[in-house]
Amino acid sequence: MKTLNVGMVGCGFMARSHSNAYRQVGNFFDLPYQPVLKRVAARQPATAAAFAAKWGYAAHGTDWRALVESPDIDLVDICVPNNLHAEIALAAAAAGKMILCEKPLAVDVPQGRAMVAAVEKAGVRNLVSFNYRRVPAVTLAKQLIDEGKLGRIFHYRANFLQDWTISPAVPQGGNGTWRLDVAAAGSGVTGDLLAHCIDTALWQNGPIARVNAMTETFIKERVHAATGAVQPVGIDDACTFFCRFANGSLGNFESTRYARGHKALYTFEINGEHASLRWDLHDLHRLEWFDHRDQDRLRGWRSIHLTDHGGGHPYMDHWWVPGLQTGYAESFVHQIADFLTAVAADKDCAPTFRDALQTQQVCAAVLDSARTGLWVEVARD
Amino acid sequence: MKTLNVGMVGCGFMARSHSNAYRQVGNFFDLPYQPVLKRVAARQPATAAAFAAKWGYAAHGTDWRALVESPDIDLVDICVPNNLHAEIALAAAAAGKMILCEKPLAVDVPQGRAMVAAVEKAGVRNLVSFNYRRVPAVTLAKQLIDEGKLGRIFHYRANFLQDWTISPAVPQGGNGTWRLDVAAAGSGVTGDLLAHCIDTALWQNGPIARVNAMTETFIKERVHAATGAVQPVGIDDACTFFCRFANGSLGNFESTRYARGHKALYTFEINGEHASLRWDLHDLHRLEWFDHRDQDRLRGWRSIHLTDHGGGHPYMDHWWVPGLQTGYAESFVHQIADFLTAVAADKDCAPTFRDALQTQQVCAAVLDSARTGLWVEVARD
Amino acid sequence: MKTLNVGMVGCGFMARSHSNAYRQVGNFFDLPYQPVLKRVAARQPATAAAFAAKWGYAAHGTDWRALVESPDIDLVDICVPNNLHAEIALAAAAAGKMILCEKPLAVDVPQGRAMVAAVEKAGVRNLVSFNYRRVPAVTLAKQLIDEGKLGRIFHYRANFLQDWTISPAVPQGGNGTWRLDVAAAGSGVTGDLLAHCIDTALWQNGPIARVNAMTETFIKERVHAATGAVQPVGIDDACTFFCRFANGSLGNFESTRYARGHKALYTFEINGEHASLRWDLHDLHRLEWFDHRDQDRLRGWRSIHLTDHGGGHPYMDHWWVPGLQTGYAESFVHQIADFLTAVAADKDCAPTFRDALQTQQVCAAVLDSARTGLWVEVARD
Amino acid sequence: MKTLNVGMVGCGFMARSHSNAYRQVGNFFDLPYQPVLKRVAARQPATAAAFAAKWGYAAHGTDWRALVESPDIDLVDICVPNNLHAEIALAAAAAGKMILCEKPLAVDVPQGRAMVAAVEKAGVRNLVSFNYRRVPAVTLAKQLIDEGKLGRIFHYRANFLQDWTISPAVPQGGNGTWRLDVAAAGSGVTGDLLAHCIDTALWQNGPIARVNAMTETFIKERVHAATGAVQPVGIDDACTFFCRFANGSLGNFESTRYARGHKALYTFEINGEHASLRWDLHDLHRLEWFDHRDQDRLRGWRSIHLTDHGGGHPYMDHWWVPGLQTGYAESFVHQIADFLTAVAADKDCAPTFRDALQTQQVCAAVLDSARTGLWVEVARD
Repeated sequence: MKTLNVGMVGCGFMARSHSNAYRQVGNFFDLPYQPVLKRVAARQPATAAAFAAKWGYAAHGTDWRALVESPDIDLVDICVPNNLHAEIALAAAAAGKMILCEKPLAVDVPQGRAMVAAVEKAGVRNLVSFNYRRVPAVTLAKQLIDEGKLGRIFHYRANFLQDWTISPAVPQGGNGTWRLDVAAAGSGVTGDLLAHCIDTALWQNGPIARVNAMTETFIKERVHAATGAVQPVGIDDACTFFCRFANGSLGNFESTRYARGHKALYTFEINGEHASLRWDLHDLHRLEWFDHRDQDRLRGWRSIHLTDHGGGHPYMDHWWVPGLQTGYAESFVHQIADFLTAVAADKDCAPTFRDALQTQQVCAAVLDSARTGLWVEVARD
Repeated sequence: MKTLNVGMVGCGFMARSHSNAYRQVGNFFDLPYQPVLKRVAARQPATAAAFAAKWGYAAHGTDWRALVESPDIDLVDICVPNNLHAEIALAAAAAGKMILCEKPLAVDVPQGRAMVAAVEKAGVRNLVSFNYRRVPAVTLAKQLIDEGKLGRIFHYRANFLQDWTISPAVPQGGNGTWRLDVAAAGSGVTGDLLAHCIDTALWQNGPIARVNAMTETFIKERVHAATGAVQPVGIDDACTFFCRFANGSLGNFESTRYARGHKALYTFEINGEHASLRWDLHDLHRLEWFDHRDQDRLRGWRSIHLTDHGGGHPYMDHWWVPGLQTGYAESFVHQIADFLTAVAADKDCAPTFRDALQTQQVCAAVLDSARTGLWVEVARD
Repeated sequence: MKTLNVGMVGCGFMARSHSNAYRQVGNFFDLPYQPVLKRVAARQPATAAAFAAKWGYAAHGTDWRALVESPDIDLVDICVPNNLHAEIALAAAAAGKMILCEKPLAVDVPQGRAMVAAVEKAGVRNLVSFNYRRVPAVTLAKQLIDEGKLGRIFHYRANFLQDWTISPAVPQGGNGTWRLDVAAAGSGVTGDLLAHCIDTALWQNGPIARVNAMTETFIKERVHAATGAVQPVGIDDACTFFCRFANGSLGNFESTRYARGHKALYTFEINGEHASLRWDLHDLHRLEWFDHRDQDRLRGWRSIHLTDHGGGHPYMDHWWVPGLQTGYAESFVHQIADFLTAVAADKDCAPTFRDALQTQQVCAAVLDSARTGLWVEVARD
Repeated sequence: MKTLNVGMVGCGFMARSHSNAYRQVGNFFDLPYQPVLKRVAARQPATAAAFAAKWGYAAHGTDWRALVESPDIDLVDICVPNNLHAEIALAAAAAGKMILCEKPLAVDVPQGRAMVAAVEKAGVRNLVSFNYRRVPAVTLAKQLIDEGKLGRIFHYRANFLQDWTISPAVPQGGNGTWRLDVAAAGSGVTGDLLAHCIDTALWQNGPIARVNAMTETFIKERVHAATGAVQPVGIDDACTFFCRFANGSLGNFESTRYARGHKALYTFEINGEHASLRWDLHDLHRLEWFDHRDQDRLRGWRSIHLTDHGGGHPYMDHWWVPGLQTGYAESFVHQIADFLTAVAADKDCAPTFRDALQTQQVCAAVLDSARTGLWVEVARD
């Protein structure tokens, strides 16, 4: 088995999720490559050292450029705030490294375009970590759609609801709260949360043609965690949009961080001519399925517990025994398994930077529509 | 359309449920008979008068014997405490009246036997109000079992959980609490609640061969509502039993009035070779259904919302439009509709007194087993 | 007790719901008036006669004007297609009758304005049958909001999803399907379904300031049930809109008849600073409640089973015993109980025609926005 | 940080669960010891080699005695069929090793007693892998009970339902199916599944005084996977028992492998004077909680999603961010974290062999009662 040396840039929450996946993947999947945690780079030396010790990275430092250019690195994994993705990705591509980049791809379309151009020019494998595609229930949903089991699609509905910023005392900026700082995040819930919904939707239901959006910033000023200064809040706290897909179906998307009682309630529901399905991140191991072709008196929403073996529950043959559920962490393991398999087969692994650029285009159109109050056509690269 | 004159004995909660059903049934079902609320008898003149005024009974009085013997009464409906069922039923049978008797049939088997003998000798139609059989979801469950859709049955499980007697301040005896007085009720949860579960189980899954039971009285003394005296509590507060059905399946039944958080949580679940189903009185308009013959990756518990029209949801074609649920009251309407249909066809309507006697036999065996700590064979009449 | 003579115009599904309520209300509520089913008018003599026989109306005919002008009628109940509401209401007001009108108020704002003017000029009590306000869980939600238990409201979300028109073989027009005929219905899901959502929302969360909407007609042509001719479909099959409430909260509404698996899935969710709640017509006896003030480790969505007595579950003290659920029919009983109480107290009973006109204004703005693709301010009368 | 060398005996499903936990624990918990996967022993050399390669064990072999006696091993982890536990544990204790043993402790009480005697004499730390204690929701349930939040306990109810042996074609014996072979397993669902329920119950609700049980073997003969011979089935396919706890509460337990639709549905519900709680392994990240002290109109079952940080959700501060669920695997990580912490503090970590012996006593009493049909007192060591 070949090794594949990983260089991690960042050591926050996402770096933990990815590191755990690199460590677990070989225990559960038979793969052509074994990831090796080679280097980690972070701004603070102590933080980098502690992270390296915790996760078993062989080396650590504060200079991401050194990591990117290090000859012993095969894959650069970018787990830093959104506004830093582009620069690192460009350098990594220039150095000929494979890249796994956290979502969203970038803070705007121009940055995203540059990143796509860079990886395509360099010919390096690239993947954006829209990990929810690899939740078994979400993958099963995609398979059912692709097989035509839903028939013509009429409606696509998705929400991503949180409640962690309701208090005005939550600062913006800094380590835990850079997502509230428009300079670091680029946007609020649109890029952070709706990007997930959009990625899944484009994958499952095809292109979005045009959008009409509304955004709101409920709390107008917050203290900046780094400077202590009270500053205007530049992000969108909430975003709702409806849209038309190219296939004629209607979309309705909403995200907020002001939905008391919901922590990370990403849900989607798809209504087709023959069947409907829905999913909910808070019970991610289940898929709800309604099939109108069932005998009339016995029609009902089925709650499928995705833990079976040998019966077509994606990824699940690799885990425990029927009835025993997986959680959030496993979606990243599946992502790495698929990526390494694709690398070995010399194939793309979706969503590539190019795929993610289209999500960025939808986000841009959404924000544009929210500003103008008008329908906006989604550009295509 | 012929009229059928009803004489109601009692004017408590159950008399209301029945009266409502007599009034509604003709509005929703096309029937050969129209029930007419003719007379009501209750102990207190004022109570009887108020009840008659409220529900439109043409006459009222305090003498149930006068009601029973009145020539203008076709059907005697018995809605009084359990210990009074037998005497009234015997008189009604002797007077040649049809009888609808609240459950349980009687306070013990000898009383029940006398009641069966009386109605069979008199040749009068008789029905015991185990109304939950007529909840559409419960009826559908019965149909599925009878069609063989579950295959061999392995397990039958039922609970009836309440929480209204946890406080020691609740009295025994009196109007609202005669169910806690062993003299009036005969037993506690066994006759009041498990009788429902047993009736449904015998109907769906056939005879129970033998039982093994445990009962408990958590609060040993209570004030008597009528006398104010503190007296020992004679009823069972909780009863658990397991059993073997004649068909080889295993049963597990439990009832209590000390299950905090449950008001009237009657649930059953039946596990068969090919399929399972479960039901819950707190959401009585739904039936849960699992079919192993569904495609493997799509197997899951279906929640069937029993509100469709034209598709085989029992009784539901008579109500509103799809999606709009019925509740507790409708089960009594269905009961009357079925009874009147049977009367017109000169047929029995189950559960007859004889059917209910078998439930009484199981209850007796359960209480006997709880006393002796031994398995008890269920007698059959 | 005084009687209140009811004249019913129409004998379809809604006339049944109302008739049942008039018959039941006095059995469960102590009221100053007893409704009497006096007359029914319908187009076909046989239909009117059958309906009168079924429900106990003393007289029947085909001339609604005769009914409206009959001196023995106190209340005119309008249960006919939307396009007939105005003419009948105007005549009834002119005749000095109280009016209960099915929703939506009218097919457009001008008609609605005329109806408001007529009843206000005549000084007759008037009510529009947005019955879902009187589902106990919905009423409790309103009380919690009014008490300030949610704090500042951030989000209001409502859906009304059905699936009965997916087949192109469903005709438009005629008895069962006049809701698909734009001439009879005025609009599609907007007036039929979203009107319910909007009525509840205005009541609970105050005025909607402006809206932005999208509609779609998936099936472009249908056979007309009466003529057999294939005609363009003029109604909206689906409608999604977002909006801003006057209180600063954001709204997101969606309705469709193409959501496979949903029969009448009216749901709403309200997210406030301190608490959130949600409700679902398919389990209308429950209210979901999340309170951030609960101890942190014990926070969770509560499923409140609205069947308790004496504890503040609206209307429920009038029904059965704890644990036993009510359904769709009872919402109309509550509506009549509240209306008769208001009449006796010489007070308005909401939603009056004037209240309903505001819902009509929102519907108009929604349809206008869907046509223009622009935000539309909601007019206020 | 000190290392702690692990020697694994067995390489099946449980060995995978434990190995994963040893590998993950240091990434998520700050511990005094870092487990090192040193040796694995299994019957087949190729299997042992493959397992070692997969999980990173430094050495492998077929001789568990060599492993047990190897001076570089600190902890022996026993993941083999039940009938082999005792011999290995005795040898490990004699060699002075710490022991982590899969559940159930042994195949019978005498074996269990010998094991307890051995570890207590040797003074080695010992733990039995009743991992479900360490599911965060189950741990929270325990904390709530210990704090007295439920008040007096009336009822304890637990089920463990599966459906994988319904087909007569499933063999007994062999690698995947040794649990059906009484020689290897000792008993059927009683030792395999009810042992989990009993361990949790004893921990949460104290000693069980006496039991009354029923068992059944639905399929009487099966092919033996190793020999191909058709042999009588010696295990219990299903077991139901009720019991009395020493604290006066009533217990009701049931397990089966014939409950179609359930894969590993371990559920428990506890009803106390003030509050009730319930849990379900199929959604293990949730705890249902009902508190009668909530305001009356707002009482309802809460579904607590155990993913919060900083608020008292056991173990959860170590994982991801709020809303993101853990699954089955994490319960083993928690188990190792607790064990290593206890080892460093020179304390016992429950359930020790002695604790597990009491579960074995209950199982023995259950099987004894099922044989005799009589109540059986539970012996205490």
